[in-house]
Parts: sequence; C-alpha cells; structure tokens
Amino acid sequence: MKEKISIVKIGGKVIDDEKELEVFLQGFSRIPGKKILVHGGGKWVSEMSERLGIEVKMTHGRRITDKATLGVVTMILPGLANKKIVAVLQKYGCNALGLTGADGNTILAIRRPVNDGIDFGFVGDIEKVNTESIDALLNSGFVPVFTAMTHDAGGQLFNTNADTIASALAVGLSKHYAVDLYYCFEKKGVLEDLSNSDTVIPHIHSGNYPDLKKSGTIHSGMLPKIDNAFDAVEKGVGRICICHYKDIQMLSQGNFQIGTQITR
Amino acid sequence: MKEKISIVKIGGKVIDDEKELEVFLQGFSRIPGKKILVHGGGKWVSEMSERLGIEVKMTHGRRITDKATLGVVTMILPGLANKKIVAVLQKYGCNALGLTGADGNTILAIRRPVNDGIDFGFVGDIEKVNTESIDALLNSGFVPVFTAMTHDAGGQLFNTNADTIASALAVGLSKHYAVDLYYCFEKKGVLEDLSNSDTVIPHIHSGNYPDLKKSGTIHSGMLPKIDNAFDAVEKGVGRICICHYKDIQMLSQGNFQIGTQITR
Repeated sequence: MKEKISIVKIGGKVIDDEKELEVFLQGFSRIPGKKILVHGGGKWVSEMSERLGIEVKMTHGRRITDKATLGVVTMILPGLANKKIVAVLQKYGCNALGLTGADGNTILAIRRPVNDGIDFGFVGDIEKVNTESIDALLNSGFVPVFTAMTHDAGGQLFNTNADTIASALAVGLSKHYAVDLYYCFEKKGVLEDLSNSDTVIPHIHSGNYPDLKKSGTIHSGMLPKIDNAFDAVEKGVGRICICHYKDIQMLSQGNFQIGTQITR
Repeated sequence: MKEKISIVKIGGKVIDDEKELEVFLQGFSRIPGKKILVHGGGKWVSEMSERLGIEVKMTHGRRITDKATLGVVTMILPGLANKKIVAVLQKYGCNALGLTGADGNTILAIRRPVNDGIDFGFVGDIEKVNTESIDALLNSGFVPVFTAMTHDAGGQLFNTNADTIASALAVGLSKHYAVDLYYCFEKKGVLEDLSNSDTVIPHIHSGNYPDLKKSGTIHSGMLPKIDNAFDAVEKGVGRICICHYKDIQMLSQGNFQIGTQITR
C-alpha cells in the first residue's frame, strides 16, 4: 500500500488575516504523516504594487506579470508571505521549509506562450514536478511549503497559480503516494446556495457533476477549481477536498469527511 | 579524514551588479564537492526602504531593524535576492535551495538584548546551528543558499549579519567536515595599501596579526572580519580565505592559494 501524503493549498482571504492564518497553520501543523503546504500571496502583491506605483494589469481576471510585477511577486511570495508562514509553522513544531519551484529544481515551467494576442508576461506553465527532490526533503522530515513561483532552469523565475501548483504536486506525487489534496478557503465547501453556509455539497463525482453544472448550482468562479480537481483525480490523486481552513484541524482527530469531497 | 566542504560568503557591491553577480555564481557553481553559499542583500534593503518611505535608522554603523524594516528585509533577502541567486545557480547546474534560519529550523537565534541603551530591534544573535538539518540537505545533493535571516522557533524572524551566519555555519559544520570558509568581495584580499591591489597580504596568522594591527596595516573596517575569522579557526574551521569574488573560479582548477589566507 502506498504511504499517505496530505497536500494542502491555503488561499483566499486567510493569508491577509494574521490571526486567522495562525489558526489555520496550527491546524495544518497537526496533520499526521507527510504533508506539503502551498500558498499564494493574497492581496499583498496588489497592495505592494500600488505602494510602489506599479500598475496592476489584468486581463480576463488574471494578473499580467510584467518585469516590475515579477519583482513584487518575488518579494512577496517567497519573501514576506512564505517566511511568515514558515516561522509560524516552526513555532508549532512543524519543520517547515519554504520553496519556490527553483529551489532544489522542484518545479520546472515554460513561459506561457502568447495566445490570442494575450501575453501574460512572466507566467509559467508547469512542465515537470521533480518528485525525487521533493521526496528527498520529505524523507528527511521536512515539510515543504511551496509558494506560487516556478522556474525554467535557465535563470528565469515565473509566477504560477498556486491552485495549479498544488494540483501538479498532487498528480506528480501520486505515483508513489496515496495523495489527499485539500483546497482550503473561507467557505465550508462548495455551496449549493452561496448565501447559506449549511448547503455544502458533500460529494461531487463524475455522476452528479454534469447536472450540478447544468443547473447552475456550481457557478463560474468555482468551475475551473472543480475542473482541475477532476483532472487530478483522473491522473491518480486519491481524494480532493474543498473545505474551510478551520476544518483542517479535524484531520488530526481522524475526521476526514470535511467540506466537499471530489472523487472520480 | 573528514569530508571537505566549502562555505562561501558573497558580500559587498557584487550583489548590486547583476552581471558581476552572475560571473561569481558561475564560479561558485563549479566548486567541487559539498558547498554552501551565504549572502546579504547589498544596498537593496536601504533602497527599498527609501522607496517605501521607511526611515533607515543606523547606530554605530549598523542598521536598526524595527518592524517596518524587518518587513523590507523579509521581502528583499529571502525574496528578491535569494530567489535571483537560486535561479541563476540552477541555470549553471548547481542544485541550489534557498534558506533562512527558519527554514528547516537551520539557525536558531535570540533577539539581541538592549545594551548601553541601544536596541537593535529584530536582530538575532545566533544560539545554535542545526547541523543535522543542514547535513540532511547536503546529503540529498542540495546546495544550501543561506540569506541573512534567523528565527527564535517562536514565530519571530530576525535579521542576522551574513558574515556571522557564514562563520557560525563553518564552526558548526567543522565537527563533521573539513571546512574551508571564503569571504568574497570586490578586493583581492586584505591589502597592505588600500590604493594598490597588488599588496595582498597572503597569510595572516596569530604570529603576524598583532603586528599588522599595531602598525595600522589592518584598518578598522577589516578588523571585525579578521577577529571573527580567528575566532572561527580557534573553534575548528580549517582555513579562512578573504578573496576577490572572481577568484572563486580558481578553486575548480585546484588552485586554493587565492586572496588572504587566515589560519591559527
């Protein structure tokens, strides 16, 4: 039987709230067994860009990472955000070690090609997850804490979506591990009624997903997340869970039925 | 016989010059055997503080790290500076992995106590180098790239002088390794005549150091570096070398007689 590993992506507004972030990190530190954390930078990149007078350029809801923005991303993600998270995890006895895809050559990417005239700038599409490097860290007892950056092995860093990194890590590591992938945010799961937090859809699978899509129950913002999740389970990830960041503490109590479970 | 390790600290103006930094990093990548790089952030911390309107406070020539400055340090050192260095080293086939003392709990420090009414703020004095963690990384084939930050294992990050980190790593690892410690900067070594780069003092040892000090040949700026070096050789470091950052490439050609050698 494959050894279990938990890959947790923390996102949304939690990163911006020091107190709530610490609640989440304490919960994460208690997850038994091997584990990996993946995080973005919340609003910090936009805020710092503004303070530095760097224009935030967006297209189709996604940031364009020009050279100046890549500089801000490199200050915020592996700098301010990652080190704060690593230091707090160490406080809770979790031997965190912060990484971009360049560190230990863990995640290789290529610059996203210009498509339909849209140039996203220094955004990387993942080519390869270096599972040997990550395995070496895990086997030495480290808890890798990845931030949303990759590299091309030619000296160029890229910004890469944190959800995508979590999913690529999960797929890559599923060859040798039984992977549970958690997407944590500030809602209890995928909700039928966004205004009612008691309407969590407990299980999404290939049987009910088409209907949930068709009825509009799962709306535009959540669709790419779920599509990515299905892609990952197709490629070998055991279980994907979309849940509230506070519910992650239940894992240490042996309760894995949290949030919305996504399976084949 | 102990296995050899090279610990290299890069400092001075090299960090600020992208082209020269790459020349140095290419040389570093070619050093045979196990190795560690230590770096600060050059002028970047002061420059970014200024851009953000954060007052740079100094006392006795040393920066006072208040909360706002620690934020800038955390953006620049493990962010902008460390990731640029890691990405370039990967380009030259060197499997670099960036670290602060918080990552992998590698370097523990305590906040420097207020002394003579001087509060340096979030500056850490090193308490312990976690050689087991560092050894695990080295044995997995990673090249640790430390930046000038430590932590207290209670969630607090500190700024810690990069020279001091290099020296503490050298002393800590000398229990299991034959350590060569290199301080690289933009001069050819310790000069008898600062205006003449051909006046490198090839060897400083306990026999000639008192005279060199007394005659004023070794001046104020270099004194703490040499004092630290003597402290390190007393504690087991085999050889300390103060040299030009370009000369580091000679190590791959088997030429170790570069710059100024400091031994007992």
